[in-house]
Amino acid sequence: SKVHRIASIPGDGIGVDITVAAERVLHVLAKTVGGFEFDFTTFDWSSEKYRERGWYMPPDGIDQLKKFDAIYFGAVGSPDVPDHISLWSLILPIRKSLNQYVNVRPTRILPGTTSPLSALSTTSSHLDWVMIRENSEGEYSGQGGTSHSDTSYAVATEVSIFTYVGVSRIMRYAFETARSRPRKKLTMVTKSNAQRHGMVLWDKIFYEIAAEYPDVETDKMLVDAMTVRMVLHPESLDTIVATNLHADILSDLAAALSGSIGIAPSSNLDPTRENPSMFEPIHGSAPDIAGKGIANPVGAFWSAAEMVRWVGEGSAADMLMQAVENVTAAGVKTKDLGGDKNTEEVTTAVCEEI
Amino acid sequence: SKVHRIASIPGDGIGVDITVAAERVLHVLAKTVGGFEFDFTTFDWSSEKYRERGWYMPPDGIDQLKKFDAIYFGAVGSPDVPDHISLWSLILPIRKSLNQYVNVRPTRILPGTTSPLSALSTTSSHLDWVMIRENSEGEYSGQGGTSHSDTSYAVATEVSIFTYVGVSRIMRYAFETARSRPRKKLTMVTKSNAQRHGMVLWDKIFYEIAAEYPDVETDKMLVDAMTVRMVLHPESLDTIVATNLHADILSDLAAALSGSIGIAPSSNLDPTRENPSMFEPIHGSAPDIAGKGIANPVGAFWSAAEMVRWVGEGSAADMLMQAVENVTAAGVKTKDLGGDKNTEEVTTAVCEEI
Ligand SMILES: CC(C)[C@H](C(=O)O)[C@@H](O)C(=O)O
Ligand SMILES: CC(C)[C@H](C(=O)O)[C@@H](O)C(=O)O
Repeated sequence: SKVHRIASIPGDGIGVDITVAAERVLHVLAKTVGGFEFDFTTFDWSSEKYRERGWYMPPDGIDQLKKFDAIYFGAVGSPDVPDHISLWSLILPIRKSLNQYVNVRPTRILPGTTSPLSALSTTSSHLDWVMIRENSEGEYSGQGGTSHSDTSYAVATEVSIFTYVGVSRIMRYAFETARSRPRKKLTMVTKSNAQRHGMVLWDKIFYEIAAEYPDVETDKMLVDAMTVRMVLHPESLDTIVATNLHADILSDLAAALSGSIGIAPSSNLDPTRENPSMFEPIHGSAPDIAGKGIANPVGAFWSAAEMVRWVGEGSAADMLMQAVENVTAAGVKTKDLGGDKNTEEVTTAVCEEI
Repeated sequence: SKVHRIASIPGDGIGVDITVAAERVLHVLAKTVGGFEFDFTTFDWSSEKYRERGWYMPPDGIDQLKKFDAIYFGAVGSPDVPDHISLWSLILPIRKSLNQYVNVRPTRILPGTTSPLSALSTTSSHLDWVMIRENSEGEYSGQGGTSHSDTSYAVATEVSIFTYVGVSRIMRYAFETARSRPRKKLTMVTKSNAQRHGMVLWDKIFYEIAAEYPDVETDKMLVDAMTVRMVLHPESLDTIVATNLHADILSDLAAALSGSIGIAPSSNLDPTRENPSMFEPIHGSAPDIAGKGIANPVGAFWSAAEMVRWVGEGSAADMLMQAVENVTAAGVKTKDLGGDKNTEEVTTAVCEEI
């Protein structure tokens, strides 16, 4: 049978709990569907190891990852390592070095869960979004610096870089995504009223590429006004494209509006398939509940389903998502979703459904 | 009696409708309270005039404004002028040139209005925030540019500048605000995990100044996670301090969570009082409903109340806010708040209450 080789990086905190859960579910899925299996190789790249040995990834870390069909990532972040060190030593270099320039973040209200928005509490049909996040440049370019540190005249800069190549490839991916969905609707988010250079380039390229997709209905929002629309008119949105930072913020908001940050998946894709893509729930390492066995594994399962789809097992991916939805519908949920089950109980329920 | 000289800039769209309403209410207020009056000078700086004569403000515009005790601003933005031109020709230069480095944005749920958050629908006691927005630098520094425009290798940059002076003065204002409120609680928002220079300087200065305010309880959030907390745990927040862009986004979200962007006020302050401060509702020019007489004037009245307080008439400001709250409580509301009244009816009701 076909073997999908997966690099597994559990990372920190609940990243470990949910990666264990995801691997368990994926093995059951492969066994049930048949014809393929998963071969996981675990990398102990974490903040704990960083404290022991002074590094997250070894110098050839990226090369090691390149040999896999996909990467499964738990979470990174630990109270005793400054976040900018942990993230720029692990998750951000992987996204960038493996050319994972698309980050796909779907949001919908799963059966048996409720949105905090009162208008949505009776129906799940009004919030069904896919956010396409630019994942390789923009506000996360890593450029900038500090002069006169530790003086009362210190100056620090953050430089966002937007390139024609970077912007047009994400736009094209967003238009393709919009076209593949029933409503064929794309909303582009910028802040081009206040930021006159990179954001204006976004707008321009958006209109340029829109001309190639006459069947896709488009509109344009400012990022601040977008939050209002997401809260007050969620039904008006479908596919959304935004910069690295804007989509980072808006996708967390989307997860909250769908009930819990614990549900939401994310796919870091290299659409050229020259490099492996990476799948991770959008939640963080949640040090406060780490190791207690109570983390919500749904975002991890949903991310795993996206990975399964990406490696070519579409019907298995559908089966996994259906199992997850049956389980939430049956009320087998963790505390963040108003349930009283722990990680293992939810995981076992999903395995049984499969 | 004392005369408060106000520069009034109605601007575009519903900015005009709500400025008329605010002036009317302020005259009634002065007459009722007695001992002071308002002398308004209207400036026709708008997108319409820009199309006629090619400029928004005359070259000595800022100097003209300096002679006033305060500035009342409606809104700017028009479909036929690119937003980055209109905003950088009017509202942004005013904020910057008059050293209005603080932007204060309170949010609460007014009596008779409801939050879209189901958990808040029975009580108004759980969402009462003041957002302190840095208003002079950061992502709105205006630096950056484009190289190779109109080629397929165009590169555009946006440069955010953070200075020790800029950051420490806004932090100090935020700590003073937090201290003045019953809960004495300050949440600082950054994205220092992804942005390692300016954001790390924010964090550093925050902790430095926190040491001077041991009576203020502090915590720190990442901007993405902050949206989740605002939606799912609004009661846990009180005073919030954030960068120019982050607070722009979060304050619109806050307004949406309180029921409508039409309610929310903002004060652009020069705390040194060397220059006049500026007061404006946070909503935009809303070209779709402009001139129809249906804009919600509550954000305009609340902004006016903040202006009245700033020029030293604290009890008149309280009276105005009480009148506004009595009117919303009585159900005299525009459509965005679920009512059926127009701008004039709400305005008349507020005048009568006063
Ligand atoms: C961990 C952090 C760098 C990351 C980001 O900002 O991209 C996270 O918030 C996310 O959304 O994946
Ligand atoms: C009009 C625009 C420049 C402005 C801003 O981004 O500051 C507006 O959104 C606001 O919040 O006051």
